[in-house]
Amino acid sequence: PRPPRLPLEQWVERVRAGDRNALSRAITLMESTRPADRIEAQRFLDRIMPDTGRAYRIGLTGTPGAGKSTLIESWGQMLINRGHKVAVLAVDPSSWRSGGSLLGDKTRMPGLAASPHAYIRPSPSARTLGGVGAKTRETLLLCEAAGFDVVVVETVGVGQSEAVVAELTDTLVVLLIAGAGDSLQGIKRGVLELADVLVINKADGDNLSRARQAAAQLRAAVKLLHPPPADADNISDRPGADGVWLPPVLTLSAATGTGLDEFWATLQHHRHYLNQQGRLEKLRAGQAVRWMWSMVREGLNQYLQNHPRARQVAHQVEVEVEQGRLTPNAAATAILAAAGLTP
Amino acid sequence: PRPPRLPLEQWVERVRAGDRNALSRAITLMESTRPADRIEAQRFLDRIMPDTGRAYRIGLTGTPGAGKSTLIESWGQMLINRGHKVAVLAVDPSSWRSGGSLLGDKTRMPGLAASPHAYIRPSPSARTLGGVGAKTRETLLLCEAAGFDVVVVETVGVGQSEAVVAELTDTLVVLLIAGAGDSLQGIKRGVLELADVLVINKADGDNLSRARQAAAQLRAAVKLLHPPPADADNISDRPGADGVWLPPVLTLSAATGTGLDEFWATLQHHRHYLNQQGRLEKLRAGQAVRWMWSMVREGLNQYLQNHPRARQVAHQVEVEVEQGRLTPNAAATAILAAAGLTP
Repeated sequence: PRPPRLPLEQWVERVRAGDRNALSRAITLMESTRPADRIEAQRFLDRIMPDTGRAYRIGLTGTPGAGKSTLIESWGQMLINRGHKVAVLAVDPSSWRSGGSLLGDKTRMPGLAASPHAYIRPSPSARTLGGVGAKTRETLLLCEAAGFDVVVVETVGVGQSEAVVAELTDTLVVLLIAGAGDSLQGIKRGVLELADVLVINKADGDNLSRARQAAAQLRAAVKLLHPPPADADNISDRPGADGVWLPPVLTLSAATGTGLDEFWATLQHHRHYLNQQGRLEKLRAGQAVRWMWSMVREGLNQYLQNHPRARQVAHQVEVEVEQGRLTPNAAATAILAAAGLTP
Repeated sequence: PRPPRLPLEQWVERVRAGDRNALSRAITLMESTRPADRIEAQRFLDRIMPDTGRAYRIGLTGTPGAGKSTLIESWGQMLINRGHKVAVLAVDPSSWRSGGSLLGDKTRMPGLAASPHAYIRPSPSARTLGGVGAKTRETLLLCEAAGFDVVVVETVGVGQSEAVVAELTDTLVVLLIAGAGDSLQGIKRGVLELADVLVINKADGDNLSRARQAAAQLRAAVKLLHPPPADADNISDRPGADGVWLPPVLTLSAATGTGLDEFWATLQHHRHYLNQQGRLEKLRAGQAVRWMWSMVREGLNQYLQNHPRARQVAHQVEVEVEQGRLTPNAAATAILAAAGLTP
């Protein structure tokens, strides 16, 4: 049986003091769907909001086999040795479907899991209200309030989870490995749009030259596909310069640690870039507002789903639209009318 | 003063017979926001739905200066000489903003505009309900019912207009030109995700070798960034083969006509690819259903916009979210509650 909850003020204080147990239970509170819990969760967040926003928020995406766990394990320990406090969160679309968690396993990162300066939070094992990653933002804020100054949000990049992580973080790292021939393993359509830093892992042993070749090709593709906007004076992946961030392509070996220093230095460059000209404030404010509207859309979808008549009409007209017997506009009008929401 | 409207049955018959005047007035009916017109428009569409779906629907996107008008003018006349009937529609985000139309000018394509086998429809000059391109689907259906067997939907690719056109058409052509150095002019983030055929225009005169070099580089980038899905046996940009479509990269000169034959042959290849294994039916059914849901979302947004209390709360909480004083989830809950739409 769980110990009884602390009064809110005390609980908030313990999280602020970095108490891991209090933090874990606060995250569980955020994930709860019970109405009373949701009210308390909101009160909790209201208290900690002034303590949030201080961490460097880093997204990490890569298919299974790209080496995410190995990278986080060695990189995380490097950060701890340099005095950072590191939280690792997962946005896991598969746990949302299956009820189990691929990413949440602390045994993937035993060294990090054993450190008092790291906090690993498995992704919620049940479906949470509001879709994939819905409560990750709150979890991230709690970790910031608890004093973690580097928060890594990782995902396998299934469905829209990469885009979700990009909207939660300051820097999105895409982890890839060289494939057969000229190809890259783990690259997904649209990922170049989102990536701030591209990393080719497993650049070691027999694989080294393949990894370097893949990096050169990817670098050329990035350059070709990142047109300078009309108003940019120049493009730079280095700090101090104005202009647009051109995603750098790195190689490293998470297993041997080669390239980790340069990797961290590159992230620092991106952070420095964001800290210029109010970019970080603008980025985070935009993310928060877009997140708000996506939650509104989720809520409206939920409303339609819970409206028996609208749901019934939707099922019916969807088939007619699929078969080309009804125009999408007419079908949409029918669904809205059934829900009593005609604009 | 306009002539009075025909009775519906006669009007529908004239459109079916290819009467351009009847077609133009039917499109205007679709774009009308008057409630009585909207009811008649729906009745009109119900009648013509069995005559729709027969055209090859081609999207064309490219920035101003890429040569869209020149291409459509020469390519369109080639198609007419081969016995096709060609309709050209525009999805123009700038007309939606300014009330004027960039793309609708028939003087851009004088030869095509003079042909009885072509129909050029300027984009609606006023904002239409439902956002950019909201009534283009209906216009396209009317053109199909009027016997046009090739429908080209063009856009400058501002904002989301490329994605809108991709959702309306079978094949999306992206028109580019070689830029300075290694670059491409007119390429936009995310466009490789949407493109079925990539064309580098102005491959003529002094520009020829630059265009060819840009094409080679783009081809390499496309190959690198289009990973074969796990279940694909092979990748092909040629007809007859199974597997996944790898967007081919062509060069042509719309001004001299060089490469137009190969361009049209490539589009035919893509059409042939879509006609295999029920791909076209699946594509169009998916587009129609997604369009329906996007119209539902538009309607819900409209509902919130028209709801005074919800609009007021939204304005207020948006500022708090921007400033990091309120979480996006809490703000979304407040907006939904104000609209009486708590799920």
